Amino acid sequence: MDENELSQFRNLCRENDKGYINLQPIQRGGILPPESKKVLQSYGDGYSLCDFCFTGRMDEIENPPVSKFIEFFSKFVGMDVSIPTGSSREGARLIISQLASRIPKGKEPVLVLDGLAHYSSFLAAEAAGVSVVEVPHDGNPTYLLQVDQYAAKIDEIMDSSKQEMVGALLTHSDYLYGNVTDPKVVGRICHDKGVPFILNGAYTIGIMPFKGKHVGVDFLTASGHKSMASSGPIGMVACASEYRELLLPPSQIKGDWSGRTFPHKIHTVLGCPSVYGAPLLTLMSSFPRVVERATATKWKEEVAKARLLAGELEHIQGVMQLGCKPHEHTLMQFNTPAFQDIAREHPKKGYFLYRELKERGIVGIFPGMVKSIKLNTYGLSRKQVQYVARCFKEIALEHGVDVSPA
Amino acid sequence: MDENELSQFRNLCRENDKGYINLQPIQRGGILPPESKKVLQSYGDGYSLCDFCFTGRMDEIENPPVSKFIEFFSKFVGMDVSIPTGSSREGARLIISQLASRIPKGKEPVLVLDGLAHYSSFLAAEAAGVSVVEVPHDGNPTYLLQVDQYAAKIDEIMDSSKQEMVGALLTHSDYLYGNVTDPKVVGRICHDKGVPFILNGAYTIGIMPFKGKHVGVDFLTASGHKSMASSGPIGMVACASEYRELLLPPSQIKGDWSGRTFPHKIHTVLGCPSVYGAPLLTLMSSFPRVVERATATKWKEEVAKARLLAGELEHIQGVMQLGCKPHEHTLMQFNTPAFQDIAREHPKKGYFLYRELKERGIVGIFPGMVKSIKLNTYGLSRKQVQYVARCFKEIALEHGVDVSPA
Repeated sequence: MDENELSQFRNLCRENDKGYINLQPIQRGGILPPESKKVLQSYGDGYSLCDFCFTGRMDEIENPPVSKFIEFFSKFVGMDVSIPTGSSREGARLIISQLASRIPKGKEPVLVLDGLAHYSSFLAAEAAGVSVVEVPHDGNPTYLLQVDQYAAKIDEIMDSSKQEMVGALLTHSDYLYGNVTDPKVVGRICHDKGVPFILNGAYTIGIMPFKGKHVGVDFLTASGHKSMASSGPIGMVACASEYRELLLPPSQIKGDWSGRTFPHKIHTVLGCPSVYGAPLLTLMSSFPRVVERATATKWKEEVAKARLLAGELEHIQGVMQLGCKPHEHTLMQFNTPAFQDIAREHPKKGYFLYRELKERGIVGIFPGMVKSIKLNTYGLSRKQVQYVARCFKEIALEHGVDVSPA
Repeated sequence: MDENELSQFRNLCRENDKGYINLQPIQRGGILPPESKKVLQSYGDGYSLCDFCFTGRMDEIENPPVSKFIEFFSKFVGMDVSIPTGSSREGARLIISQLASRIPKGKEPVLVLDGLAHYSSFLAAEAAGVSVVEVPHDGNPTYLLQVDQYAAKIDEIMDSSKQEMVGALLTHSDYLYGNVTDPKVVGRICHDKGVPFILNGAYTIGIMPFKGKHVGVDFLTASGHKSMASSGPIGMVACASEYRELLLPPSQIKGDWSGRTFPHKIHTVLGCPSVYGAPLLTLMSSFPRVVERATATKWKEEVAKARLLAGELEHIQGVMQLGCKPHEHTLMQFNTPAFQDIAREHPKKGYFLYRELKERGIVGIFPGMVKSIKLNTYGLSRKQVQYVARCFKEIALEHGVDVSPA
């Protein structure tokens, strides 16, 4: 490798770093407040978290206050036990694997999950050697989950002599349409049938109010970089106290020659969770703000801004918000056939929209996508949302697309 | 949670952030150069890496140049295939699990590893449901690994009708004594016996020169925050091309109702590796420096400074460097019985050493430890090393411990 080849790694700088309005659907909830940017510097060096680790367990560190944070996080999400993980999906793998370990040999372990589940939920099941059975949604355009069907799907598996229930997973808000599904119904079904209930809160915990055990949740996954104003990668997993031993068992392995054992280390997270540095610190530093922002009032304001934009965009010919209406999340997807028509004739093809928005100081719409677009308004001001609406309409008009009067 | 409780998370700041000489044994290799501190800011927000992800796979991103980095990393470590992981230990779990998946049912899968292996290697085996058999070292004071014994241990397992070899793991440099074991011997044994050879390079890759396949390595794990000037958590795993499919197989799961499949996602890393943000960027940004510093010449200079300090400290009565001599790594452990004697009478007990060093601008010796101490001189200047030696001797003298003349 010569200097010429290596030079591409020098002076790396995020292209969309400064000054843009960012609509990226998975980035709005993960933007750091200034104090957490400072923390990122202070704890930037590798392993900086471990300066005062006295027990060999990151979750027990008191300076900085990791153990306190974990305790408070449990309260925040209304669960009993929490632990940081590298990501929400790692948390899902952990939960599903451990639940699957209880299934008798010879039976096929099955996870029931919603048809809107994130791909990583499928892959977490796959990694755990677990089959999936999906609960359907009602398809285009609302993609409304048929929550009642959890009961029938679970019954089918319970009645089977070959299969055995691992648990039921619900995606609190999905990543495609931003449909929020009330966990209460699934919680009740799971409780009635004695099935562990896992909630994927990657797109909700940290931006909307939520208490897990109130609605029958046994396991919860949350994402710092998605929804808790944190630098990635950092996730949290939480559970009810009855599952503590299953989720976080002590190591039992023993060196055959040395006799070395590691009883204080956690078996499932390879000792202590592999999140020793800056990302966890940003999660902790942003936590007071996250607690403040994830209230019913604040969330209602956020949803109102999202609905405002949806209403405005639907003035553009053919634009239709997908998913449930009125929308209950700031992440939204729209069909945009008019932009697709423009792209066909445009020298920049599908990239014209990305470019014309960027010229106006707006980024985050997937470059090249025009048939449908995904965006997120979380944390934008009303004024910014109005500006975004105006820009979309302006671009439409400039390309001869009809825009109905407001 | 009231403001009073939340206030402890405001204004988090690393106590040992600025101006200290840091001897922390696991932190010297993970200190960020200034340009990577800048990158940490630029890519601080969650998911910032994914601005231009066109294929749904982080390892294929071209802006910033992730895919190029991965290609260059493989060259750097002399392997064929690489992928980022959350940590070196996650990489170990991945490798061991995948190798274990080939073992026929009914057989006990066994990993042969060195008696100096990191605890996380034991836990990675445990997580994969794999037993361990240790290769002995010769104990106090050199802890020299009896590398030839890999052959006998492997033979024993191969001869057993109940057990089956998963692979052999060697810790390139251990974390307790900084003993560097030449992988060549183990590589040859593994090659002769047809056993996959895994090298844990967490304490070597990024600070000393190394090419994996030259010495028969089939799988390699490396740590960004330990030895590649990166913000944690970030690791790399690499393998020879024949193991690509085993290590990084495509997902095969299918939604039973939706028919959804994810053939472009990697099964073993839950889609794409959960390292979407700032830490990987710091690894990439520091890479040119890491390539420059991990040369035979530079490493020789580093080892010379470590030996200089070891020699100086051994002038203090009773101080003895543990592990192999002359030492081949900058991480070292010393028996320090004189400091233990002082601690017995001292009002601050074992913490006196930490405090008295800190007063002199030196941190990183584990607070409270005096019976033996671990430290690392990597990247310190000769002048700094001499200053550290002087301070230790000064503290010893002040407490009436004999220090022999230089």
